[in-house]
Amino acid sequence: MASGNVEKLELSFSAVPDKPKKDWVLLSLRVLAFLATASATLVMALNKQTKNFVVATIGTTPITVSITAKFHHTPAFIFFVIANGVASLHNLVMIGVDILGPRFDYKGLRFVLIAILDMMNLVLASAGDGAATFMSELGRNGNTHARWDKICDKFESYCNRGGAALIASFIAIILLLITTVMSISKLKPKN
Amino acid sequence: MASGNVEKLELSFSAVPDKPKKDWVLLSLRVLAFLATASATLVMALNKQTKNFVVATIGTTPITVSITAKFHHTPAFIFFVIANGVASLHNLVMIGVDILGPRFDYKGLRFVLIAILDMMNLVLASAGDGAATFMSELGRNGNTHARWDKICDKFESYCNRGGAALIASFIAIILLLITTVMSISKLKPKN
Repeated sequence: MASGNVEKLELSFSAVPDKPKKDWVLLSLRVLAFLATASATLVMALNKQTKNFVVATIGTTPITVSITAKFHHTPAFIFFVIANGVASLHNLVMIGVDILGPRFDYKGLRFVLIAILDMMNLVLASAGDGAATFMSELGRNGNTHARWDKICDKFESYCNRGGAALIASFIAIILLLITTVMSISKLKPKN
Repeated sequence: MASGNVEKLELSFSAVPDKPKKDWVLLSLRVLAFLATASATLVMALNKQTKNFVVATIGTTPITVSITAKFHHTPAFIFFVIANGVASLHNLVMIGVDILGPRFDYKGLRFVLIAILDMMNLVLASAGDGAATFMSELGRNGNTHARWDKICDKFESYCNRGGAALIASFIAIILLLITTVMSISKLKPKN
């Protein structure tokens, strides 16, 4: 009995240096994913461009109309901001759980729950990216069949900032994908 | 030692009737998900409406132009068809793996791989749904800010069939979500 206890203690000691090593990779991936989704959210949410268009001239005085392009004029971009905002929050919470979590574990259910939440978060983020990507494509190229003209020739910097938000969110998707695969792989039965 | 072996045998016997029971639920969910994604793919891919528009009249003779609305005029709908087609294929393969798979298992890695593939499939399907949903919303409501007119008042049955494909794909997403959660839960360490 006594030797059995010693063996157990040894095992738990040898297991300690292993676990944080693996967690640091996951943790830093989560931090990077948080930064990517947060910047995608902010860049898109603050995206706004006002431009003056000359609609007529009276004598030599041009009559201008100022038109503002904002992200919340497009439902797909609103969804994009919500999806990336939720993904940022999720990763913040998961970073917290990673640090404080081991205290609240129950029969290994914690890791299953984390994997499922990671997966759902990724699904939401990818739906937001899909919506915003194709709406941006429409803004850039237009659609002659539906007679929807492109608007990126008029609101160039609005489109470029939107594109930057999309690139950030694509990087986030890749990071979230790696994170989720790691979360699922953690559940692998150990032999 | 002998009594220990008997106990193990009993455990494995009692575990046998449990497993196929759980698999039948998952298998039927996969079949349903396959039917949903396949019908979403087909309904969207075959969606087409030709309509005649009167553009002028010479005397009493109307001059008409026939315009056809097809899914492949919209990149988002092409992506939707690809995503749902891939999801259908994935579920077919997974049904095959469910039936034949146990022969090719390696250290329980099969279930990890299935969970990861299920997750990736769901992510792809959700990106396709996000893209198609917001493009359909644009077709139905238009966007006054970008001066994109709605087209569903002209191509009503085209829009309705597209809406049916979207509903089928939403049902598919819910089924795929349940399937993926079940795949991940299967990995839960048994106590």
